[in-house]
Amino acid sequence: MTSILLTPGPLTTREETRRAMLRDWGSRDGDFIALTAEVRRRLLAVANAADSHVAVPLQGSGTFIVEAAIGTLVGPNDKLLVLVNGAYGERIVKIAQRIGRTVEALTWEEIEPVDPGRVARALDADAAITHVAVIHCETTTGLLNPLADIAAVVAKAGRKLLIDAMSSFGALPLDLSSLPATAVMASSNKCLEGTPGLGFALIEKQALVAAQGNSPSLSFDLVEQWRGFEGNGQWRFTPPVQVLAALGEALRLLEAEGGPAARLARYSENCDILVDGMARLGFPLLLERDLQAPIIATFRHPDRPFAFERFYEALAARGFVIYPGKLSKAESFRIGCIGAVDASDFRRLLAAIQDIMETRSAA
Amino acid sequence: MTSILLTPGPLTTREETRRAMLRDWGSRDGDFIALTAEVRRRLLAVANAADSHVAVPLQGSGTFIVEAAIGTLVGPNDKLLVLVNGAYGERIVKIAQRIGRTVEALTWEEIEPVDPGRVARALDADAAITHVAVIHCETTTGLLNPLADIAAVVAKAGRKLLIDAMSSFGALPLDLSSLPATAVMASSNKCLEGTPGLGFALIEKQALVAAQGNSPSLSFDLVEQWRGFEGNGQWRFTPPVQVLAALGEALRLLEAEGGPAARLARYSENCDILVDGMARLGFPLLLERDLQAPIIATFRHPDRPFAFERFYEALAARGFVIYPGKLSKAESFRIGCIGAVDASDFRRLLAAIQDIMETRSAA
Repeated sequence: MTSILLTPGPLTTREETRRAMLRDWGSRDGDFIALTAEVRRRLLAVANAADSHVAVPLQGSGTFIVEAAIGTLVGPNDKLLVLVNGAYGERIVKIAQRIGRTVEALTWEEIEPVDPGRVARALDADAAITHVAVIHCETTTGLLNPLADIAAVVAKAGRKLLIDAMSSFGALPLDLSSLPATAVMASSNKCLEGTPGLGFALIEKQALVAAQGNSPSLSFDLVEQWRGFEGNGQWRFTPPVQVLAALGEALRLLEAEGGPAARLARYSENCDILVDGMARLGFPLLLERDLQAPIIATFRHPDRPFAFERFYEALAARGFVIYPGKLSKAESFRIGCIGAVDASDFRRLLAAIQDIMETRSAA
Repeated sequence: MTSILLTPGPLTTREETRRAMLRDWGSRDGDFIALTAEVRRRLLAVANAADSHVAVPLQGSGTFIVEAAIGTLVGPNDKLLVLVNGAYGERIVKIAQRIGRTVEALTWEEIEPVDPGRVARALDADAAITHVAVIHCETTTGLLNPLADIAAVVAKAGRKLLIDAMSSFGALPLDLSSLPATAVMASSNKCLEGTPGLGFALIEKQALVAAQGNSPSLSFDLVEQWRGFEGNGQWRFTPPVQVLAALGEALRLLEAEGGPAARLARYSENCDILVDGMARLGFPLLLERDLQAPIIATFRHPDRPFAFERFYEALAARGFVIYPGKLSKAESFRIGCIGAVDASDFRRLLAAIQDIMETRSAA
């Protein structure tokens, strides 16, 4: 049985996307150089960033591109302020500490959005802070941070903003021609609906050029990675050729769907059906509704005996794989709204959950 | 037209291997945990290392796993000696310098194998050296270094050996139950004939445990990566699920072929046909024949006008993609012998080259 993945990624992809992986590619051959150029151009177009930023893809997971961007863009004499309201914000702090950068965290509860006013005051109070990092959609809970307001505050204070848009890129609005941001980091396998194995950063060209020599890692040096692409169009080190081919197809399918706005509409419908249906079945949303991004929704356990592992297995047996555990501190679980899934999948999911809960009550 | 790749990788894979990528996997689901365990077990079995080493796969290119292994295993107070006779040895020196490790290079010409006697003298002369790194098959030229003799010398001197077996693992003999080595690093897309996107290290368990806290990178910390697998069987950070599935299938196909010995026999036949045929066509081997590993062969330009780019394009038009350039310092080019290719492919290749050379002579 083919299962549907309702997770924060890797997620359900379209068959066309997976079939794009059936070919072998010479990674230094002309065809693959052209594919790389196409993907880099399309990534910039998703965020309307062609005039201001360059796209630097990197092999590996989303965490790799975040570590690479922090290590490349935050220099040894800089100071990074991380806005933390979940596990992914905490991870950026850990990354910066590990690579020896000066870093400070400004923290909120995981059910609270980042407060731009507090960010403004923190920047006023510490002139040493050069960079600010924020998670656009905190996948820990699915919380949407107020990106435009945060970016305005950071720009007004003359600092550089690094956005972890891992779980939002390709669906939630992001226009880098109007939103001031030095870099945006994301990956192939979330809202772009590609397969996992690639991250990328969109970086302001002048900030990238100025970052030469910063990186404490050869593999993660995004200046050298970019100079490779600009030099001969090739990757410095062997790329996952099939994953790039899948991402190319996924980006073409995103355009064919109508771009990020159309994708957001589909995900929003998925999320609305899910959240309303789960409420009827006794699973309240962890977050206030207006803080919940249509990416992944976190539900509290119901007011009755509930064994999550049995629930997970029962859903898996019916063809729905959700995230098997939690990152949140609350008794909760998560169901993803993203991927090649639509309203009909969520109606089937809710019917399955109703069935599971009724069967269990009867037992 | 489907081309055949005759490169150092990514290379030609079998259709079954690529078709294993057609499924979506939940990366934290039981099925994928089982696949991860199978791949880790099979990787150890390839090098007869199940009793001594643990397998730690890592997302990204081969360079990533080399950087991760150096950063994890060579501590800040250690000293690394790198045996250099090509570009990949030089790269290890660069990696170690970049991550701030004390490193020294012992160098040979790119057509000379590492001399174990000279290594022994270097270790005698410098008690500060704790680790030695060597490239098993230097892909720059295809030269095979005398691994067993080097390992014996390093073990006798009581130092730790790190082997970059990127282009040899899965074909050339490597028995870690008799060959003393702290770690072996390789990737999914060379002699294992998987698709690119994963590296792995086989590491002596006690050396890995002792390396806790060394890594200057969060993403590349192989102790934490390993503890993730040992803890709940999951990857710390999103893995390239389809690439792992392809590697699993490729490892099953390796076993079905008869293991590394059978694969070596196929590659050796490929290489013999190639080298003999090229000699007849006026392309001498760069290396002495007994130094040439059956992985990738480097040929000098012929004694007549020869434009490599035209040659490359003419071969590509006939369905053979070779490495488009050189790493060697000599006027030369490389043709790979590895991947899902056999004697008949090399006979067709030689016929195509003969045709190209005759056509050109006639012009």
